[in-house]
Formats: sequence, structure tokens, C-alpha cells
Amino acid sequence: MHVLAMLDGTLADPEAAHIRVDDLGLLRGDGVFETILVVDGKPRELGPHLDRMARSAAMLELPEPDRAAWQRCVDVVLGAWQGGAEMALRLIYTRGPESGGPPTGFALGGPIRAKVLRNRESGVAAVTLDRGFHPDIVAAAPWLLLGAKSLSYAVNMAAMRYAEANGAQEAIFVGSDGSVLEGPTATVVIADGNTLRTTPPTSGILPGTTQAALFRAAEKAGWSTKVEPLRVADLRAADGLFMASSVRKITRVHTLDGAALADVPDLHAELNRLYESEY
Amino acid sequence: MHVLAMLDGTLADPEAAHIRVDDLGLLRGDGVFETILVVDGKPRELGPHLDRMARSAAMLELPEPDRAAWQRCVDVVLGAWQGGAEMALRLIYTRGPESGGPPTGFALGGPIRAKVLRNRESGVAAVTLDRGFHPDIVAAAPWLLLGAKSLSYAVNMAAMRYAEANGAQEAIFVGSDGSVLEGPTATVVIADGNTLRTTPPTSGILPGTTQAALFRAAEKAGWSTKVEPLRVADLRAADGLFMASSVRKITRVHTLDGAALADVPDLHAELNRLYESEY
Repeated sequence: MHVLAMLDGTLADPEAAHIRVDDLGLLRGDGVFETILVVDGKPRELGPHLDRMARSAAMLELPEPDRAAWQRCVDVVLGAWQGGAEMALRLIYTRGPESGGPPTGFALGGPIRAKVLRNRESGVAAVTLDRGFHPDIVAAAPWLLLGAKSLSYAVNMAAMRYAEANGAQEAIFVGSDGSVLEGPTATVVIADGNTLRTTPPTSGILPGTTQAALFRAAEKAGWSTKVEPLRVADLRAADGLFMASSVRKITRVHTLDGAALADVPDLHAELNRLYESEY
Repeated sequence: MHVLAMLDGTLADPEAAHIRVDDLGLLRGDGVFETILVVDGKPRELGPHLDRMARSAAMLELPEPDRAAWQRCVDVVLGAWQGGAEMALRLIYTRGPESGGPPTGFALGGPIRAKVLRNRESGVAAVTLDRGFHPDIVAAAPWLLLGAKSLSYAVNMAAMRYAEANGAQEAIFVGSDGSVLEGPTATVVIADGNTLRTTPPTSGILPGTTQAALFRAAEKAGWSTKVEPLRVADLRAADGLFMASSVRKITRVHTLDGAALADVPDLHAELNRLYESEY
């Protein structure tokens, strides 16, 4: 079901123990990760994912990831995969054992969760949740690691649980100034006419690899794209609201904070077509 | 050097791998922990530490920790320890493997780091760092897990690195309203005359076990204690500023944001004496 390759390129048993108890990724959430969609053996946006992992690592002052080693590690998982057409491939890179030694790195391939596949088809209800910080703090407070994809994702997981406990399948974080940020593991995209919009990385969010691919395709097809601050009212007023991520692709939001949004099957189909046209 | 016991009470080799790559403590920082000081074989504040672990676990919606199992696990480490008079004992409790199965739990005993011992003697310089959130959000946004001692400590570690890169050994987090919060892994305590003060847990900080022990002893000795909001100016104006934590005990802050604080060896010795009188 799962395929595991360590950063040195060796295949390993994903059911066995490979991590020391004093790994700082475990003890302190002190590491970074990426999740990559693989379709028919081809990883999507591998370059941008490796770029982003390097940026996150720099923000955490981890040693620069060895790009060639990561590419080889990915290839080992791809070569050994015997699952379905789609795979979620996670790259994990930690500060390594507290007692010293090199960083810990591995790539873990597995199936896309059934829930994610269901949401792609039927769309999701989302709730907005206060993320607590003002976007102005991002540049001034690098220690907050805003915009790094770190292993310290307990808040992201708690937000998803909170959403699910409140009848939704997604959360959308909002800054203390009311500006829209991102989902716990996805990028917010809205469509208005022939314009796509998303929120700026300067607000402390992760630049989305899937959102970037969609925008690239849309621009080629003559759409306008804007990366600019959005308010929750913009999400409600838009023709369509979507959550973009590697495993979600372009998932439609049909309900926001309990209120139904307009049903837009043609728009959703068009965005899916644009996104898929990149591969 | 280190002693490891798994939650089932078995001793294990701390240098060996015991954790699966898909443990959610590793993949998502999704778990909780405690660090307990052991002196001459006796764990200090074990009950309050186990209470706090249970509170943190509840905030993360983890299964309630099995208190008897944790106490047995601690006893196994204590019984096998052959190191010095002091031990730092960490309890780690994660959501377990993503693929299912019980939570992961273990206790890891090790020596107190030399840096911490040095700081106890010579005191520390501290810098104040914006934590980004307003204390008012704590009760309204449980998904932010403010006040839970989770494994998602990348920001705490980044703050300590930032402090060290700026010539300090400690950081003190401040809310977006200017109120004092806590250190990344310690509680802030100030002394004024015969009054000790610390900041309230309602501001999203961790209730300190060492601070609580100190306050308990101080109250018995006729001091006043106050748990109330503090401003940075209060830290500067106090007779003495201290960082309290299990491994630090009561460490003096001699410099705040680059400015020397009054030297107060007698006050520091008195607080140490009060704290030690509890054991």
C-alpha cells in the first residue's frame, strides 16, 4: 500500500520503525515537508515543491536539502509503486537526532485518502477560523515561521478537526484584520468572470504549487490572475470559491460558514480542465 | 547516557529506531509532551506534570493519557538511570501512526544540558519577541491550541535560535497588545519587594509547574503572589526578573533587550532557597 524510501535512496519497510525517539522532527516538530501528487508515475510540480522545501528549510535554518538526493529518493518511490494511478508522495526532512548526526529525510508514497477523492467530486463546506495574527507581523517576526511548511502542524490539524466537528470539511484561516489567509493544507482561489484571485504570500501563507499551476494555465488561456489581499466578503461574492492543493486538485467550496454558495458546475469543470492541461 | 522506556513499561535502546515514519507526532507535530526534573531519583512535580499532559492531550483531542501506565513508565526510567544526580525526563505522547493504531508514548531520561547548568549559575540575557496574537483570542479560538504543550514547537525553537543569534540565551514572548506571555520553554516570574508575579494562563501561556512550586513555597514563607497581566515595562522595573522551568529551576535574567538589569544575588539566592524548600 505504501512505499518508503530513505534519503540515501534505499527502499525500506513503511510498517517498520525507522526513526529514533530523539529525532527533533518528533520531539519538537522541527522539520519541513511537502506533499506531491503523482499521476500515472509522473510527479506534478516536483521542481516547485523542491524549491518550496528549500525555502521552508532556510526559514527553519536547516541544512540546505540535497536536491539531487531528493530527486533520486523520489525516483526510488516512483519505481517501486504498485498502487493506483494516483499517489500522494510526502517528503519529510527533519533536523535529525537531538544527540547529533545528519538530518533525517525520507519520501513516503501512499494512496489518496477516500475522503479527499469524495470531496473533489462533491465539493466541501468550509468554515472561516481566526488564525490570530495580523499579516503585518510576517516580515517583522521571522521566528513565527509564517509561510514555512514545517512539521509543526498541530494547529492545522486542530483547525480541520474543529471544521469537521462543525459540519464542514475545510477551514479557511483569516487574519486578525479580517483578511483571508489560506486553508490548513490548501490555498484559497476565487473566480470572478475571467479573473482568478488568491491571497499573497506576504500575508504569511504558503505559496501554493497547485494554485500556481492553475494560474499558469489560466493565463495561457487568456484569463486574468491576481495575487492580492481578499476579505471574507470577497469569497462570498465571487462566482466560485475553490481550495487548491496537490491532493485536492481544485476542490469546490459549496458552503461557507453555513451559507450555500452559488452552484457553478461549468466553472468548476473549466478550472479542472485548465489545471489538467498543464500535465 | 539516556534511558528510554516505552509506555508499556519496557526498557528500550535509546539509540535504536522505535518510531514509524507515519507517526503523526512526526508527520504533523501532533502530540504533547512534558519535561520533568528528577533530582536524586525523585521526580519533581510529577503530579502537576501529568495533570498538564492530560490537559494538553484534551486540547488536542488525544485519548486521555493512562496515568497509571505513565507513572509505571516513569518508574522504569528512574530505576534504570545510572547518570548524575539530576535528570531531565521527557514524556512524549503522540496520536500514533496515521494508518491507525494506539497512541505512541515513551519516557526519555537524559542529562541536563551543560548550557542550562551554566545559565542557572551565571544568569541569562533575554530578548522580547512578538508572539503575534492578542491574548483576547485564546478562549475564542481553541483550534490555535494556545496553552497546550504540543510537539509543534518549531516556533519555540526558532525563537530560541533568534535570541541566540542576537547575543541572548532566552526569549520572552509578548502579545500583540504588548502584554508579557512566557518564554519558549519557561515561565516569566518577577519579584518586587515581597511579592512574586507571573502572567495568567488565560493569555494563552502554559501554566508553569516550577513557577507554581516557587509560588507555593513563597506563600508559605509569607510572600504575596499575583497572577496578573504584565507589561514589558514591569519586567524592567522589577527588583528581579527570572525564567522558571523544570530544568532551569529559577534562572535569573541579567539583561533584557540589551539593557542590564539590577544585579540581585541575594534575591536570586532567596528564590532558589524557597524553590528547593519544596523538595
